[in-house]
Amino acid sequence: MHACGLIVEYNPFHNGHKYHLDTAKKVTKADCIIAVMSGNFLQRGEPAIIDKFHRTKMAIKQGADIVVELPFVYTVQNSDLFARGAILTLGTLGVSSICFGSENGNIKSFTDAYETFQDNDELFRVTLKKELANGLAFPEASKRAYQAIGLTTGGLDLSKPNNILGFSYIKNIAQLSPTILPVTIQRIKNDYHETSIRNDIASATSIRKEIFSHHSLTSKALTALPQTSEAELNSYKEKSSYWHEWEDYFPYLHYRVLTMGIEELKQIHGVDEGIEYRILATANDATSFSDWMGRLKSKRYTWTRLQRMFVHILTNTKKAEVSSIIQQPSLPYIRLLGMTKTGQSYLNKQKKEMAVPIISGMKKSNNPFYSIERRATNAYYSILPPQSRLSFVHQEVTPPFIHFK
Amino acid sequence: MHACGLIVEYNPFHNGHKYHLDTAKKVTKADCIIAVMSGNFLQRGEPAIIDKFHRTKMAIKQGADIVVELPFVYTVQNSDLFARGAILTLGTLGVSSICFGSENGNIKSFTDAYETFQDNDELFRVTLKKELANGLAFPEASKRAYQAIGLTTGGLDLSKPNNILGFSYIKNIAQLSPTILPVTIQRIKNDYHETSIRNDIASATSIRKEIFSHHSLTSKALTALPQTSEAELNSYKEKSSYWHEWEDYFPYLHYRVLTMGIEELKQIHGVDEGIEYRILATANDATSFSDWMGRLKSKRYTWTRLQRMFVHILTNTKKAEVSSIIQQPSLPYIRLLGMTKTGQSYLNKQKKEMAVPIISGMKKSNNPFYSIERRATNAYYSILPPQSRLSFVHQEVTPPFIHFK
Repeated sequence: MHACGLIVEYNPFHNGHKYHLDTAKKVTKADCIIAVMSGNFLQRGEPAIIDKFHRTKMAIKQGADIVVELPFVYTVQNSDLFARGAILTLGTLGVSSICFGSENGNIKSFTDAYETFQDNDELFRVTLKKELANGLAFPEASKRAYQAIGLTTGGLDLSKPNNILGFSYIKNIAQLSPTILPVTIQRIKNDYHETSIRNDIASATSIRKEIFSHHSLTSKALTALPQTSEAELNSYKEKSSYWHEWEDYFPYLHYRVLTMGIEELKQIHGVDEGIEYRILATANDATSFSDWMGRLKSKRYTWTRLQRMFVHILTNTKKAEVSSIIQQPSLPYIRLLGMTKTGQSYLNKQKKEMAVPIISGMKKSNNPFYSIERRATNAYYSILPPQSRLSFVHQEVTPPFIHFK
Repeated sequence: MHACGLIVEYNPFHNGHKYHLDTAKKVTKADCIIAVMSGNFLQRGEPAIIDKFHRTKMAIKQGADIVVELPFVYTVQNSDLFARGAILTLGTLGVSSICFGSENGNIKSFTDAYETFQDNDELFRVTLKKELANGLAFPEASKRAYQAIGLTTGGLDLSKPNNILGFSYIKNIAQLSPTILPVTIQRIKNDYHETSIRNDIASATSIRKEIFSHHSLTSKALTALPQTSEAELNSYKEKSSYWHEWEDYFPYLHYRVLTMGIEELKQIHGVDEGIEYRILATANDATSFSDWMGRLKSKRYTWTRLQRMFVHILTNTKKAEVSSIIQQPSLPYIRLLGMTKTGQSYLNKQKKEMAVPIISGMKKSNNPFYSIERRATNAYYSILPPQSRLSFVHQEVTPPFIHFK
């Protein structure tokens, strides 16, 4: 059996994701599609609109054979660390290929770019360091470093978000699992940052914007979503009364920061370069999440970077624990969230060769991976009423979703 | 000018407090009554029903000439440390006498008891240590230690809560400010622990119970309260929409504990003797504050001790910071909350002789006293809507309440 890996967030699963999944299957001729998915918090530092368990069902019902969770510690990170966690996961699961969407759609431009990057490694690093020291934010600084080594003109445009992510996949595949074949599909009809829905394939950002601004699944939003996504979104909201967004967490985040000292704040992952002083100086006057973000945003601190930092404050994730585990050469476990009959057969064969256990429920453990996941889960559900909260947290110890088509 | 000190919480100010205040003035013939009052959290580990600023107004309008704040670090503590902070404060302000209510009402029984205590210091300590090691809670263990040195039979009954507090005042006066004259008045008509209102003098506990169970100032509650207390309670609720009680803080406390690790929990003041394991083991299932308390309460961990511990978790108060300042021989400042014209004259004369500054608004400072107060203030108001919250926090930097009768 031959598996193809996808690296996804499905926030929520939409028609574009369906297209990606079906095309990946067709192009790679895979018997089994494995999606490694962000958990309850996302790469750009946001709570997921509905929890990972309900997002897993969307994906499995739409054709993914296996959904596993990308550990929190790799998820809410820059594209390189996000990619590292995803490639470690898919490598462990023995996929033959990985298929990602990009603005570019041409895999050769990615591998060529990687060769250029390797040849100019030193110049890239020096330039990046210099531009960061000049006060530029990471995305702008790395863009200039790519420019310096000739990687923004001609071949691959590394100012496009999905090209950047794709390039991170290529780098990590080369370094961690060079036998995996990288494949890319051109994204169709929409930009990643597109904020309005114009047709049946729309970005997840624009779909969430539509849902949150109307507090409902409008007919416009539904144009871009498969019916199973509609069902899961409705089912989750019925049970929890929430579609999660940052503003829901503001009272907790605010309380937390207002009872922290500067030294404590500095220990949190992502609180760097003196931002702790700005956070404390602006906290008292902040009246909402977006108000606070507005007070903090600057050329150096991008929206995404600030959001990630706030996720780490909310979940109490410390620099020391992250740095102790993020560069480890393997994962302590693979967390299975859902599978089909096909996925089950694949895992049954594969697991004999795996050095890492596949787990389906989170046990108690002193391993920092487990305790970070526990805190992230607890922070995510903290906004729910105490009575219903418990049944959601309980999903952490229940078996994975199995779908017999 | 001659001042008499009172040690109070005024939660809320009621007819019994008025009686205490008037009688203290009459008995000690003081020109000026100085109340040192708990701030927004109380000795027994509870949020105050309304904030310290509104409670100050109650007291000043009812005859106190000066209200100063007992620092948080001394307030949410056992009776000995609570008394230490209060006597340090009143000693600094140069009071000639201190007048407290007791079940006993006979000052000689207190001073005699202190002599006995001094003579049997060693036996007391050994017994206390042994009984604590046997798993008894502090109140029961210290009762047995007093028994061992003969202090529960005959003279002073040290099983009564106000006798215990009074005895702590006597001990601390002897050790810190031996020139202060201690005076006691017998409490009338009610027990400290009385939970229902039977006449116009009722305990603060019974008054709060009446208010919280009806969510209003019932005519029964009003029988026990001066009109100014009614006015301040109503005014506070109109502005904030709250009369504070523990259940209001449950979501924040719960979120906080659920995102903490065991090592972090152990650093919190009052989290001792392995209770951290029980806290984490019970946290997930707890659905309300009282539910959680029920799961934690045992012979060793009394209700009060658990409540104090939860205040320290909520306010993020660490063992290290408390122990570094609690035994200091003097206070860094006296925080003035309110005064009358008489109080103002007294302070104008007194402050020339004081080594410690009187402050009326909290500045920014790295002094741990200030940062602990800041966090306690922020935790107390964290339940308020973000817009109105700000005006309440702002009271921290505004001048004291001055009442020109």
